[in-house]
Amino acid sequence: MDLIIKNGTIITTSESYVADIGVKDGKIVAIGTNLKEEGANVVDANGKLVLPGAIDAHTHLAMPFGGTVSADSYLAGTRAAACGGVTTVFDYPMQRKGKGIIETVEGRKEICDREACVDYAFHCCITDLNNGAILDEFKDAVEYGVTSFKCFLVYKKEGMMVDDATLVKILLKAKETGAMTNIHAENPDLIDLNIEKFLKEGKTSAWYHYLSRPEYVEAEADKRAIHWAKSMEAPLYLVHMADKEGLEAAIEAKREGYDIYIETCPQYLEFTCDVYKREDGRNFVCSPPMKNKESQDALWKAIKAGEIDTIATDHCPFQSYEKDWGKDDFTKIPNGCAGVENLYPYMLSAANEGKLSFNNVVELCSTNPAKIFGCTQKGSITVGKDADIVIYDPSKDFTISVDNMHSDYDHTIWEGKTLYGYPVKTFVRGNLVYDNGEFVGKIGLGEFVKRIGRK
Amino acid sequence: MDLIIKNGTIITTSESYVADIGVKDGKIVAIGTNLKEEGANVVDANGKLVLPGAIDAHTHLAMPFGGTVSADSYLAGTRAAACGGVTTVFDYPMQRKGKGIIETVEGRKEICDREACVDYAFHCCITDLNNGAILDEFKDAVEYGVTSFKCFLVYKKEGMMVDDATLVKILLKAKETGAMTNIHAENPDLIDLNIEKFLKEGKTSAWYHYLSRPEYVEAEADKRAIHWAKSMEAPLYLVHMADKEGLEAAIEAKREGYDIYIETCPQYLEFTCDVYKREDGRNFVCSPPMKNKESQDALWKAIKAGEIDTIATDHCPFQSYEKDWGKDDFTKIPNGCAGVENLYPYMLSAANEGKLSFNNVVELCSTNPAKIFGCTQKGSITVGKDADIVIYDPSKDFTISVDNMHSDYDHTIWEGKTLYGYPVKTFVRGNLVYDNGEFVGKIGLGEFVKRIGRK
Amino acid sequence: MDLIIKNGTIITTSESYVADIGVKDGKIVAIGTNLKEEGANVVDANGKLVLPGAIDAHTHLAMPFGGTVSADSYLAGTRAAACGGVTTVFDYPMQRKGKGIIETVEGRKEICDREACVDYAFHCCITDLNNGAILDEFKDAVEYGVTSFKCFLVYKKEGMMVDDATLVKILLKAKETGAMTNIHAENPDLIDLNIEKFLKEGKTSAWYHYLSRPEYVEAEADKRAIHWAKSMEAPLYLVHMADKEGLEAAIEAKREGYDIYIETCPQYLEFTCDVYKREDGRNFVCSPPMKNKESQDALWKAIKAGEIDTIATDHCPFQSYEKDWGKDDFTKIPNGCAGVENLYPYMLSAANEGKLSFNNVVELCSTNPAKIFGCTQKGSITVGKDADIVIYDPSKDFTISVDNMHSDYDHTIWEGKTLYGYPVKTFVRGNLVYDNGEFVGKIGLGEFVKRIGRK
Amino acid sequence: MDLIIKNGTIITTSESYVADIGVKDGKIVAIGTNLKEEGANVVDANGKLVLPGAIDAHTHLAMPFGGTVSADSYLAGTRAAACGGVTTVFDYPMQRKGKGIIETVEGRKEICDREACVDYAFHCCITDLNNGAILDEFKDAVEYGVTSFKCFLVYKKEGMMVDDATLVKILLKAKETGAMTNIHAENPDLIDLNIEKFLKEGKTSAWYHYLSRPEYVEAEADKRAIHWAKSMEAPLYLVHMADKEGLEAAIEAKREGYDIYIETCPQYLEFTCDVYKREDGRNFVCSPPMKNKESQDALWKAIKAGEIDTIATDHCPFQSYEKDWGKDDFTKIPNGCAGVENLYPYMLSAANEGKLSFNNVVELCSTNPAKIFGCTQKGSITVGKDADIVIYDPSKDFTISVDNMHSDYDHTIWEGKTLYGYPVKTFVRGNLVYDNGEFVGKIGLGEFVKRIGRK
Repeated sequence: MDLIIKNGTIITTSESYVADIGVKDGKIVAIGTNLKEEGANVVDANGKLVLPGAIDAHTHLAMPFGGTVSADSYLAGTRAAACGGVTTVFDYPMQRKGKGIIETVEGRKEICDREACVDYAFHCCITDLNNGAILDEFKDAVEYGVTSFKCFLVYKKEGMMVDDATLVKILLKAKETGAMTNIHAENPDLIDLNIEKFLKEGKTSAWYHYLSRPEYVEAEADKRAIHWAKSMEAPLYLVHMADKEGLEAAIEAKREGYDIYIETCPQYLEFTCDVYKREDGRNFVCSPPMKNKESQDALWKAIKAGEIDTIATDHCPFQSYEKDWGKDDFTKIPNGCAGVENLYPYMLSAANEGKLSFNNVVELCSTNPAKIFGCTQKGSITVGKDADIVIYDPSKDFTISVDNMHSDYDHTIWEGKTLYGYPVKTFVRGNLVYDNGEFVGKIGLGEFVKRIGRK
Repeated sequence: MDLIIKNGTIITTSESYVADIGVKDGKIVAIGTNLKEEGANVVDANGKLVLPGAIDAHTHLAMPFGGTVSADSYLAGTRAAACGGVTTVFDYPMQRKGKGIIETVEGRKEICDREACVDYAFHCCITDLNNGAILDEFKDAVEYGVTSFKCFLVYKKEGMMVDDATLVKILLKAKETGAMTNIHAENPDLIDLNIEKFLKEGKTSAWYHYLSRPEYVEAEADKRAIHWAKSMEAPLYLVHMADKEGLEAAIEAKREGYDIYIETCPQYLEFTCDVYKREDGRNFVCSPPMKNKESQDALWKAIKAGEIDTIATDHCPFQSYEKDWGKDDFTKIPNGCAGVENLYPYMLSAANEGKLSFNNVVELCSTNPAKIFGCTQKGSITVGKDADIVIYDPSKDFTISVDNMHSDYDHTIWEGKTLYGYPVKTFVRGNLVYDNGEFVGKIGLGEFVKRIGRK
Repeated sequence: MDLIIKNGTIITTSESYVADIGVKDGKIVAIGTNLKEEGANVVDANGKLVLPGAIDAHTHLAMPFGGTVSADSYLAGTRAAACGGVTTVFDYPMQRKGKGIIETVEGRKEICDREACVDYAFHCCITDLNNGAILDEFKDAVEYGVTSFKCFLVYKKEGMMVDDATLVKILLKAKETGAMTNIHAENPDLIDLNIEKFLKEGKTSAWYHYLSRPEYVEAEADKRAIHWAKSMEAPLYLVHMADKEGLEAAIEAKREGYDIYIETCPQYLEFTCDVYKREDGRNFVCSPPMKNKESQDALWKAIKAGEIDTIATDHCPFQSYEKDWGKDDFTKIPNGCAGVENLYPYMLSAANEGKLSFNNVVELCSTNPAKIFGCTQKGSITVGKDADIVIYDPSKDFTISVDNMHSDYDHTIWEGKTLYGYPVKTFVRGNLVYDNGEFVGKIGLGEFVKRIGRK
Repeated sequence: MDLIIKNGTIITTSESYVADIGVKDGKIVAIGTNLKEEGANVVDANGKLVLPGAIDAHTHLAMPFGGTVSADSYLAGTRAAACGGVTTVFDYPMQRKGKGIIETVEGRKEICDREACVDYAFHCCITDLNNGAILDEFKDAVEYGVTSFKCFLVYKKEGMMVDDATLVKILLKAKETGAMTNIHAENPDLIDLNIEKFLKEGKTSAWYHYLSRPEYVEAEADKRAIHWAKSMEAPLYLVHMADKEGLEAAIEAKREGYDIYIETCPQYLEFTCDVYKREDGRNFVCSPPMKNKESQDALWKAIKAGEIDTIATDHCPFQSYEKDWGKDDFTKIPNGCAGVENLYPYMLSAANEGKLSFNNVVELCSTNPAKIFGCTQKGSITVGKDADIVIYDPSKDFTISVDNMHSDYDHTIWEGKTLYGYPVKTFVRGNLVYDNGEFVGKIGLGEFVKRIGRK
């Protein structure tokens, strides 16, 4: 064994127990009481929690959007991930019209090969079926290890939206090939109608970003996506759910036995639409926007009832000067906020405060995304799996500031948030990449996670 | 008094009682025991039911559609109406691109002035906002007496569909001006997708008309329309509802206190999608198509629970030779079936059989459409209202045949249906227009019903 | 004609229209425009509403309870009824162990014959099956005109409670004989448990009356009664419903098609449990007690959605000195409050304020109780029915005070309540019994209402 | 290490993976790849599943009932358990009036100390509060390791029923002391009413056992128990749920966040009420009886949706001659059937057939009962836990017969049932007790499981 983590409290989805973990060649090879091996690097985790590395199933790195590119490169974003206990990130490469899936993915994979500090996988955003050629490519893509595709029901003018017929074709082909369809659900018609009205009335502050995309804008598209998935009996993964009505429709469908999965994000759990009334409201602009308190309460209730499947971040930060473009016109604010480094600490702090259990956090942030998206080597502290491990000190408090984050952005919506407990070490396949506040990993260490399609 | 109807059992929404009715100048002026007046025409209704004339809130007369024109002219359609106990028909004039509402309505009104055998009103179908000019015209239209507008969520290729933004604009303006928005809810994308698939597979029989517009096609659009109406807190009238899922969503919204109204049609109560497997299945082709048994049961259950507001017919017959165009390709069948003469007899027969009460039928076929659409002079046997009266013999059986109908069409989906009880006399504003199997009215007698907008 | 009421606006469940009403021999014989007859007494109702007399389906007159007798004799209670526009009261005679139904009813009928100022009917409370003899008597009772029986699920120690087996036997026999089963639903075990606890803790104020019978105490018994009625497919009438959870269960059962009826009372619509914190809280003590705001809102919502069938009063006043018995011990307060004179004015005032329509009030307070309980001669302004008529001035305000009421009680929970609109005349079978603030009727005028059983 | 189980596929609630398990002193001390230790007993599990021992949370051993004693002694019952992969049984000692909890439990514990072949725990049935003394004993009982108490809402005449007030007192005290309240929910009044009716009508076959306790009998008591648990915010465990309506109420309460747990049994998943029409119907008589197909479907649907918490057996066999007592009178049939040896094989076979996953079975039959009832040393294959391990051959078919069972009973309702896959070895704390069809354990090996109360 190369590495032994001793005496920590190992957390799985159903158990919390004290044992040692032995790692060899990047894999967990033993869990036991009193593991010993000469020559192994021994890390004492006494009094600490030992968790599987988080999987952030939703990030946008180096993403061209809103007239610029998101502030975190693959390097910066995955470095930040490592320092937040995220050992695998999912990125969303965007298909350009006429391009193929694998072609699209490979363009981003190449950069990752050089830059990634943690492991990485890709959901491919589909914007154009290329007269059916894209559907024909699903099978190959799944074999290649890209087993999930994203459809936007919004961003019509931007040419990213798919209409209902395209969505249904994708759902059916994904079902056939063992792939998953991810959906960003908002209704573009109503957004445009609202924006037109507000601009005409001179209502241009960030608050109108929210009012042009209120609860009903998301709920309609949520319900429509769920309707098609149910009608086609195809799997569906709803990304960044933020509204109560859509959430309830999704939960209802799950209970009826449909293969429907729900993702939400820490920002929806922490903030409400009230942030858009703040002077720096533009910094919180993302889509979908934070919603009202009733929706936030519904999200927490669903988490407690085990009805939400994953928590991910939609990490897509922009710099202050870019956010400032929309100072006098909310439509000019690039949409997106930071999050990848805050995901696991935020949720674990919530567990520490008693809002849910540590087992639940492991399930939501690691085990479930691994299962849903076919990362068979990831997602839990289990013999045979990759040694993606986080050591967490439940008694170490931490206050988030842009200064103690490891991204390239220059501000964060999480500034000043105090967390109870914090990660102290992160291992990616047995390699220490984060140690007590410092990134200590190797750039380019991250590997492509070849995923397995659904049966 | 000009006319006294004696000793009949008068049916209102809540009472059934024996009394005489006195009519003068086309109005009901007295209800009493033992009414007398020299010189009055006395009709004995002993042993009969005396009902308010039905209001068929959904007909398409002389309607250009599917490459032809619907088989019943205003003359033929209103003549048939009279013979079926319908004393007011609502027609759906179709706005042509660039045309105004009143302009559109007046074109049809002119024909009705000459031809109508019963009173008539118009819902105007909106297909184009004319850069907003149409919205500006709503107020005038309401004052003119046209207080309801229809949106198609389907017929995209035909240029009749409105998108979500247009629908919402109409909902909001209708709410502001005291108008009602009527919706034909089906999803065009999925219909086209299904049709494309079936034609490619050589599946061309009438059965595939149903399969290309199955339950989920209607349900999605129902739910979307309801969602927007709820979100805008605007009134909504769903025409010809035929599927369980949409129906349940509408009922739920009503129960939450939203101003939502539900219409269904006799064909959905009598037939299921199985008719499309018949050799003459094409004759039953209408949109939305008849649905499965589960949906039919849900419609009856809702009727019994008082959750459906109106029954109307969507009367839009085509001739056999036109239906035959689609013998080898269901997409070529003109959509529509006969019904206006069957509405009241069918529902009253159902009451006679105990499926609902006669009071319920009066409410569904007369009182409710009058109230919902602002026909203040119509809808019940009440002193002061128009003497639109039907005398119904509950013991007279009748078997429907194209030969005993009074339209111009050459076949009917209702052929061979036996009804228990049948109308024996119809009066329009005191004028006898139908008598025991014969049309005895005057062509052109019908008047435009100037309706009153909602508060 | 003996009496003509001219030019009023007649209110039915579905219409509001101006016409004259002609009355002869206590019956409505004509409704028309411009009715004339020499010798008839003519009452001008111009600018007024003309309503059917209310039917208070729930009163307790001269009722022995709580160690005393309720403060209103049949004379006082029916005099007050007349002055509040109630033309028929239902009283609840209580079967004594071993006595028969008709025997029980006749004891009270005899008093009514002498004292009643308005018409009267009886629901008989069943406390003992007399080894089955009572069940055998149901058929005769229905023929006698007593078509409804009440079961208490509470008052166990008082010997009034029926257990589940008895309740089910009654439900089944009532179904068989065309009778209705009325239920007072509260759970006695929990009340006793709570009372024992509070008394032990020295918590003796009226507030603990509420806390010993909170929402869950009523909800359990509501749900249980509904469960048995559904399981036996027997009709059920839930009296004085006051809690949200039970209400929702009842509504759900109605929607499923079960024969379930819901009564609530003005006190639950006007007051919440907060009244028990007042110094005079004991005066508001009744069972079930007023509930929280959430339940009150649910009642109003259900009224608006047409899901409540009747409003009645549970009129059962006690004098101040009797209420004072419980000054230091809430268990010693006689349970019951005044209401019969306030029912119609309160609900009509709510209509005047726009909370519901006048048509709805007529339905809830007159037409529905008449239909549900088989008062075929009552319940609406219809030719042939009893001329039980109220003339209501919608512009006359009125502030309730014990001084302007016509009962014998010495205080009222309604003291100081201002109503918008007030009855100005009440006719019982054509006889004027109330005129502009004064009782002008004849003692003993009231007649027994022989009711017709359900089919 | 004393024992190494090599190369099996270990099943947890969320993972299935190949590894070796090392056992020392009855505990799991290591899980790893390629575990070695000289002197250890090595068992090859290649191609087999390695599961945590099942926990049957519901058995009645040597139970006096129905005028006799259940056919399996502690010895026979736990021997059968071992041979079916059950390594812990929960028995239900019955408090006799006036007796204390620990006193009651110790009487049974003494027998178990001598006879038990697997570990054992006790839920204590409460029939009498002994004037409150029993409630005062809850705290001591929890400390003693008995952390759950059972209430019967049925068996009124038998003196076992608790009324609502007693139930609520128990719920509140259990909540306070960290205990769980288990409920047998059926309504005795209706059962007695039905029985009386059937016996009077000469309807005495086993079919009338079902008809006297149909769906509504269980549903009412389920809903009432849930109502009180919700109202008191106390934990509740519903044993042997068998009907759809009660199940749905329980699920709804769970989703609202209440601490409610649902147990069902293999007999309700396999059989419907139709078995009572068989000639040997009496052998299937247990309470609650098997229900209709709709209820069975609802149970399976809930299992798939993760809404059921545990599967246990209600093992309570009687001999044929005892069952025969009720040949001509269903009320004389002792209630209860065999099951403890069939639980795990039945559920695992269902997994093998694809009805649920092996992970689900482990959760339902082992992990969940351990968690819910505080068996902290049991319930999963985890380092540090008791080495209660089952080796299961998924390719070995098995047909159940009384001849290959290891109880003392002389017939089984499972006769002839073919299972796909079967246990081949069972270890209790590392001791082999069952090997390929044979019981090889030691009588008296079983130990009392001292449980930990809820926080």
